[in-house]
Amino acid sequence: MFKKYNDKFITIMENTRPLILITNDDSIDAPGIHHLAECVRSLGDIYIVAPAHPHSGQSSALTVGSPLRITELPSDKEGVRLFTVNGTPVDCIKLALHAIVPRKPDIVLSGINHGSNSSVNIIYSGTMGAVLEACIQGIPAVGFSLLHHSLKADFTFSTAFVAAIASKILATGLPEGVCLNVNIPAKVIPEGIKVCRAARGRWTDEYKRYLDPMGVPFYWLTGHFIDEEPNADDTDEYWLRRRYVTVVPVSVDQTALGAIKDIAAKFE
Amino acid sequence: MFKKYNDKFITIMENTRPLILITNDDSIDAPGIHHLAECVRSLGDIYIVAPAHPHSGQSSALTVGSPLRITELPSDKEGVRLFTVNGTPVDCIKLALHAIVPRKPDIVLSGINHGSNSSVNIIYSGTMGAVLEACIQGIPAVGFSLLHHSLKADFTFSTAFVAAIASKILATGLPEGVCLNVNIPAKVIPEGIKVCRAARGRWTDEYKRYLDPMGVPFYWLTGHFIDEEPNADDTDEYWLRRRYVTVVPVSVDQTALGAIKDIAAKFE
Repeated sequence: MFKKYNDKFITIMENTRPLILITNDDSIDAPGIHHLAECVRSLGDIYIVAPAHPHSGQSSALTVGSPLRITELPSDKEGVRLFTVNGTPVDCIKLALHAIVPRKPDIVLSGINHGSNSSVNIIYSGTMGAVLEACIQGIPAVGFSLLHHSLKADFTFSTAFVAAIASKILATGLPEGVCLNVNIPAKVIPEGIKVCRAARGRWTDEYKRYLDPMGVPFYWLTGHFIDEEPNADDTDEYWLRRRYVTVVPVSVDQTALGAIKDIAAKFE
Repeated sequence: MFKKYNDKFITIMENTRPLILITNDDSIDAPGIHHLAECVRSLGDIYIVAPAHPHSGQSSALTVGSPLRITELPSDKEGVRLFTVNGTPVDCIKLALHAIVPRKPDIVLSGINHGSNSSVNIIYSGTMGAVLEACIQGIPAVGFSLLHHSLKADFTFSTAFVAAIASKILATGLPEGVCLNVNIPAKVIPEGIKVCRAARGRWTDEYKRYLDPMGVPFYWLTGHFIDEEPNADDTDEYWLRRRYVTVVPVSVDQTALGAIKDIAAKFE
């Protein structure tokens, strides 16, 4: 009798544990995604569904003209299942929801990206492409990025902040159509968390030019980032320079509502 | 003397003709981009810099890990130069600005896409990825899409609307950080132009499942679009159903400004 009750109780407990779907754009091989999973492992059952290969700078790209495969990998951690998809971060979210997770996840986390996704970089970010996709599907979603590009980056100081932000959003949700872009300073213990807007920025000097052995030019992406409002004190760039973890609420709807009236006047 | 004056005058005239940069995501081989160029050919000097191969659904993806090449193709139209880049629509804009056009273009146009980019589809759209990139670089930019996927789509009825919108924006510009997403109904003479917001929408039933000859499953993207607010009368979906050309102002800054206060309260 007790055994039966206990089994039922365990089943209920298992069914009510939050389901956490994790992806990234640096691929299943990147340390950042496994650190992210460790940060939140105590919060629920974890499905990691990550690109089989790196997809930095892939934005919300999806695979339209070729087939996708799902591969489950062995996991040595209880409560963690590991999958790869031979596609983009958005493919991972779409296919995970369609064919991998047993029910709608309670939260989607993406990252921890090896490198910044502050300011305008959200537009190019595969990390945030996955987050926007989850948001479109009505799931609270947060992207995490560390301001350090190396695959050997040290994520230690990010742990408490990642766990705190994920558990808070898991508990309280997010407004409809809004997801979060979290950036974390590298090599320091952050001063705290600032919720703020994305700085206006862009990249410049974006290509290095080479000549191939035949003398024909080719180009390789490089460049450096410009914060176009360095004196503003309410942007992610400002607070990252001051060693804060920045949280930018991001809207799925990109309509510039404030511009509708003026632009409508052009066509009257 | 007159010859010298005349040469100078011609030079001034040449220098003051607007410079129009055109790209797309369907590639240089798609009829839509050549129709777009014809629509605006009388307005200025045209540089077409398009992907060498189709890049639908590539969003703001850029090529980070491999080299890019520029190839100039012969053009049989005066005032039109043709180039391809072996990359994405965003690569085309970035590399055109870096290495192809003689000065900053007066306007960037993208399309005409073979297929809709209304509602949430702007997020996945390579057509709009290019437009957002131009906007980041401070250039007025407009993306055009026809609601017909076929490469044999008839663009005839779009001509007057594309020309009118492009010439108006060329003459009057756009607010900083705002670009336009224009969608055009297919197979009808449009009723007019409506400036409006993007409908909230998403895709469902997104994959067809197959078994390969070894019995291993693979998946191919498909699905159908859901307008999540079919009763709203101020969205692009609403006006497209009523045969209007829709113009959605799009913000480069994706910050959900209205959510900052509530989300900040979570972390106090």
